[in-house]
Amino acid sequence: MNRLEFAGYVDHSLLKPNLTTEQIVSGCEYAREIQCASVCVNPVSVALSRDVLQGTKVAVGTVIGFPSGAHTTYAKVKEAEDAYRLGAVELDMVINIGALKSGKYAEVRKDVESVVRATPGIVKVILETCFLTDEEKIIGSKIVEEAGAHYVKTSTGFAAGGATLEDIELIRRSVSDRMKIKAAGGIAGLDFSLKLIEAGCSRIGISRTADIISCLK
Amino acid sequence: MNRLEFAGYVDHSLLKPNLTTEQIVSGCEYAREIQCASVCVNPVSVALSRDVLQGTKVAVGTVIGFPSGAHTTYAKVKEAEDAYRLGAVELDMVINIGALKSGKYAEVRKDVESVVRATPGIVKVILETCFLTDEEKIIGSKIVEEAGAHYVKTSTGFAAGGATLEDIELIRRSVSDRMKIKAAGGIAGLDFSLKLIEAGCSRIGISRTADIISCLK
Repeated sequence: MNRLEFAGYVDHSLLKPNLTTEQIVSGCEYAREIQCASVCVNPVSVALSRDVLQGTKVAVGTVIGFPSGAHTTYAKVKEAEDAYRLGAVELDMVINIGALKSGKYAEVRKDVESVVRATPGIVKVILETCFLTDEEKIIGSKIVEEAGAHYVKTSTGFAAGGATLEDIELIRRSVSDRMKIKAAGGIAGLDFSLKLIEAGCSRIGISRTADIISCLK
Repeated sequence: MNRLEFAGYVDHSLLKPNLTTEQIVSGCEYAREIQCASVCVNPVSVALSRDVLQGTKVAVGTVIGFPSGAHTTYAKVKEAEDAYRLGAVELDMVINIGALKSGKYAEVRKDVESVVRATPGIVKVILETCFLTDEEKIIGSKIVEEAGAHYVKTSTGFAAGGATLEDIELIRRSVSDRMKIKAAGGIAGLDFSLKLIEAGCSRIGISRTADIISCLK
């Protein structure tokens, strides 16, 4: 795999809450340079990122109900509508983790469904696997598929644990072939990135993109 | 200070994203028992907390644009309106940290003002001090006062650092007497809690409330 091929799997993450305008601009310029799949920025940086990336193939993505997922469905929908209006075409939302852990599956599904229906954007749904048992990961993955989302995503990168190969394999077995998977959270090296892709990830969310990509020819 | 007096300063924090319905209920029951000032729950738990705490003096508080603050003003306002409608009367919002660090002060103020105007609730504005220089803490505090909020709050408890005595003293000197201060983030012991109150905090946000309060008579 060469750099350009690898970049096609990358959601370049620019989510630290203390990033300045200047750092968002240079992050988007870097994404444009390497031609990665998308940037993943906070909602407040969507409009700026759209401006920097206009006319390129790099998609603008953002996060919804992030990182706790413990926002009301109403607030997630309003946030999604606003983000899409401002230029985000990929939305990485977090499930209602507490509802999943309380066995309130209909509530979890309705929350995801509502965000999926709110915009024509691609929706990646974060399970935050570090908080879940294997059974909850399986149930969560199935709910995400039933709710009509496009991706199951492992982690926010803002909790105690991130993506693991075992979780990717578990999620892959829990959903049909039409579902895509995104790994995120703590992905620090090229070797691990390639293993995640090999295990079936269509996207990986990374912030140390420059370090990782420099290991490729 | 006895337990009841101390409890009057406490916002009992129940913000972990993986808390179950059962854990929220028992947290609110505990808050009712000790008669603390408020519970601080995620938006998705506001309605439930309101039900458990109905008829008591314990206020239901929630978080807005939390913990990154990097949500659009539109989304923060919608989230605040929804939270108030569901029963939250205290709203702990996070400022647009990146805008403050980029010197976009009018943007920071407008964001806070918009949330203050969205509901009749008490608004506590989190600076997330661990990301800020002393100068930014001073400017941020002044902006929060100008924007008409009720409290300056130090931290979310979800970033690298929490409340310090130095920051409370700095914030106290930066705002007028009408402004209240809430310390939060990593407050683990009674001794430190009392020092924060002595330094001028009207509220402290703690999750280890039972441990701390058990040290009092």
